[in-house]
Amino acid sequence: MLTAEIIAIGSELLTPDRADTNSLWLTEKLNAIGIEVKLKTIVGDDDARLEETIKDALRRSRVVITTGGLGPTEDDITRKIAARAMSRRLVLNEAVLDALREKFMRWGRKMPEINTRQAMIIEGAEVLDNPHGSAPGMYLEHEGRSVILLPGPPREMRPMYETHVSARLMAKAGDVRVARRVLRVSGLGESAVDERIAPVYTQYKNPQTTILFNRSEIEIHLTAQGKSEQEAELLLDGLAGQIEERLGDAIFAFRGEQMEEIIGLRLAVNGFTLAVAESCTGGLIAERLTEVPGSSTYFMEGVVTYSNDAKVRLLGVPSDLIAEYGAVSAPVAEAMAEGVRERAGTDFGLSVTGIAGPGGGTEDKPVGLVYIALSDDAHTEHRKLLLPGDRQLIRWRASQAALDLLRRRLI
Amino acid sequence: MLTAEIIAIGSELLTPDRADTNSLWLTEKLNAIGIEVKLKTIVGDDDARLEETIKDALRRSRVVITTGGLGPTEDDITRKIAARAMSRRLVLNEAVLDALREKFMRWGRKMPEINTRQAMIIEGAEVLDNPHGSAPGMYLEHEGRSVILLPGPPREMRPMYETHVSARLMAKAGDVRVARRVLRVSGLGESAVDERIAPVYTQYKNPQTTILFNRSEIEIHLTAQGKSEQEAELLLDGLAGQIEERLGDAIFAFRGEQMEEIIGLRLAVNGFTLAVAESCTGGLIAERLTEVPGSSTYFMEGVVTYSNDAKVRLLGVPSDLIAEYGAVSAPVAEAMAEGVRERAGTDFGLSVTGIAGPGGGTEDKPVGLVYIALSDDAHTEHRKLLLPGDRQLIRWRASQAALDLLRRRLI
Repeated sequence: MLTAEIIAIGSELLTPDRADTNSLWLTEKLNAIGIEVKLKTIVGDDDARLEETIKDALRRSRVVITTGGLGPTEDDITRKIAARAMSRRLVLNEAVLDALREKFMRWGRKMPEINTRQAMIIEGAEVLDNPHGSAPGMYLEHEGRSVILLPGPPREMRPMYETHVSARLMAKAGDVRVARRVLRVSGLGESAVDERIAPVYTQYKNPQTTILFNRSEIEIHLTAQGKSEQEAELLLDGLAGQIEERLGDAIFAFRGEQMEEIIGLRLAVNGFTLAVAESCTGGLIAERLTEVPGSSTYFMEGVVTYSNDAKVRLLGVPSDLIAEYGAVSAPVAEAMAEGVRERAGTDFGLSVTGIAGPGGGTEDKPVGLVYIALSDDAHTEHRKLLLPGDRQLIRWRASQAALDLLRRRLI
Repeated sequence: MLTAEIIAIGSELLTPDRADTNSLWLTEKLNAIGIEVKLKTIVGDDDARLEETIKDALRRSRVVITTGGLGPTEDDITRKIAARAMSRRLVLNEAVLDALREKFMRWGRKMPEINTRQAMIIEGAEVLDNPHGSAPGMYLEHEGRSVILLPGPPREMRPMYETHVSARLMAKAGDVRVARRVLRVSGLGESAVDERIAPVYTQYKNPQTTILFNRSEIEIHLTAQGKSEQEAELLLDGLAGQIEERLGDAIFAFRGEQMEEIIGLRLAVNGFTLAVAESCTGGLIAERLTEVPGSSTYFMEGVVTYSNDAKVRLLGVPSDLIAEYGAVSAPVAEAMAEGVRERAGTDFGLSVTGIAGPGGGTEDKPVGLVYIALSDDAHTEHRKLLLPGDRQLIRWRASQAALDLLRRRLI
């Protein structure tokens, strides 16, 4: 496989506040055409270190991609230093300068003199047009290496890569295509998942399988190589099918979809409607469901009943039920689900009540105790959960478990 | 200032799914004691590239910190390669091995033979105890450089740094202390903020000022150096005070707090209560408010009235008001705020209705049109917003504007 290095340039990427995320996106794109990323460097506006970094990269890797440092200011040193590292001259390109001037005119401004710098092009480089900003990119072949200079802002970098770089690198990479697939799992622990599917996936070097634990979700990442996209996809189909046999409906998404998207799809297809009553999740379930475009066709209403009074008034939960069992209890969870469904007149009512902490726990009802309930016109069921984690994680896990309860009913 | 490099080790950090976040945390800690991070490298389980990376770092920087690659498997090459890069031997440390065996015994397991590798220590290195995992860290002085090997998992790496590394590096860094402060701004654009405060902050090299644009929030990051923490903090106080004079109550947080924390504090201090009625934000405002521990003392209830029927039934919005002005309108926003306040019996009622897109917009009422309203027992007011961005961003910006409307009323 062809090897690549990515160099992210800019002093702001060496502060505690800014992570380099361009390289993640680029890695996915490079992997897809069969190019492996072997090293990433993050370097500031520092002539000596940047020159050394580029030289090292050229020595080690067939493809070298830089992001950032193509702006018009003194601090934007990528052009100058990349030229120096390859012992090439930097030449003013009149055509680029004219195009820049014109671009500024279209933006209704005169081009500041300082931007002339952006028309300085490394000798032998092709100019990569940037419709979304002023900094042109560059592509050049240097002593058997492909060197690509891209701007830092993702909205400029991504289209430039797609338009000008992807096809060229694909031609170099030859007949290797890589396809990826993300399966998402709910309701099983990491080791349970691994135990069930290890006998299957360990038999394959291609596709490769990685199990990631991400909040309360388990993701199974499959990566396959083939001579064509189709061949790689077929390999993925084969393994994904075997994994599905082992995990059944614990897999809720085969293409990386979110739980709320899957539920939205199932509700919409069946013409069902939903209302939600939340206590400890505080609106998170409603918020997740309504993040999906078009959710207004199936999501009718949500109530966040933090106070007991609200549970009684908005949901019709009998106050003696709360007095007898407490607000965090199975009977109250069920009454909440039934109440919201009946009042909203929806097909389903979903509810959560629990203790997200850090305060409010007792010996009988510790932090992390959560009841979820689901009601339709035939029956109402609940689950009792004991969720680990901090406040944020408990809330998220409770929302996920509640949504999963609904998903399984919809199957 | 002392210079540092951070090397993150592990092939999983070269995939599209995993970013190195340890280095952000470490950078904040290093900056605080006056050490500047000049370069970061992310390298896989690749002997040659790692050796070269470590050697380069030792040549360039006074402090070299590695994270990861200290596990017990073949892939965990940090010990071996770091030793080779410094031409030092790797020696089995019997005391470390005994401690490891004991640790596994406490975990109720026999130590796998493979873990013996973790007792191999670089000659001359001090062993850094790891109470949260099996991999010990190492600290050594090598030819005027401080070399620190830390484990990859943050829950192991962070306490090890705090306990064993911080004080040693502080002693080396000498009398430089760095203090940071984050001011958050709402209701002003980036260029408006810069215009007002540039005349102030450009006068100072210390503190340094950076303006960051983060979703719909503007953050002003101040970093000051002094001979003591107190001196650095005093410098921050001075500049922050001048910035406050220029921006007034557009600054909602002086110590990096979230909007919902600030509001929670103000409500709690005054003994006020709040209820929220949301349409296009779909529960996001309730979710943000209830993310704050202890919010149940002031947040009583929220309703997510996606359907018109819910607006009428749950909030008492007159249906002819909706018919006349539409659900996304100032009169409906005000009726929602009043309705939720009256029914919940709270001091404040806050509401949002709008079009988050991508569908549902018209020429008269485009995507991004949002009305927010706030009601107390004296009066009700609304704001009309035209928010740019995609669905997620419009929802977030609407929630922020609504919370900010409440914050200003609470001042």
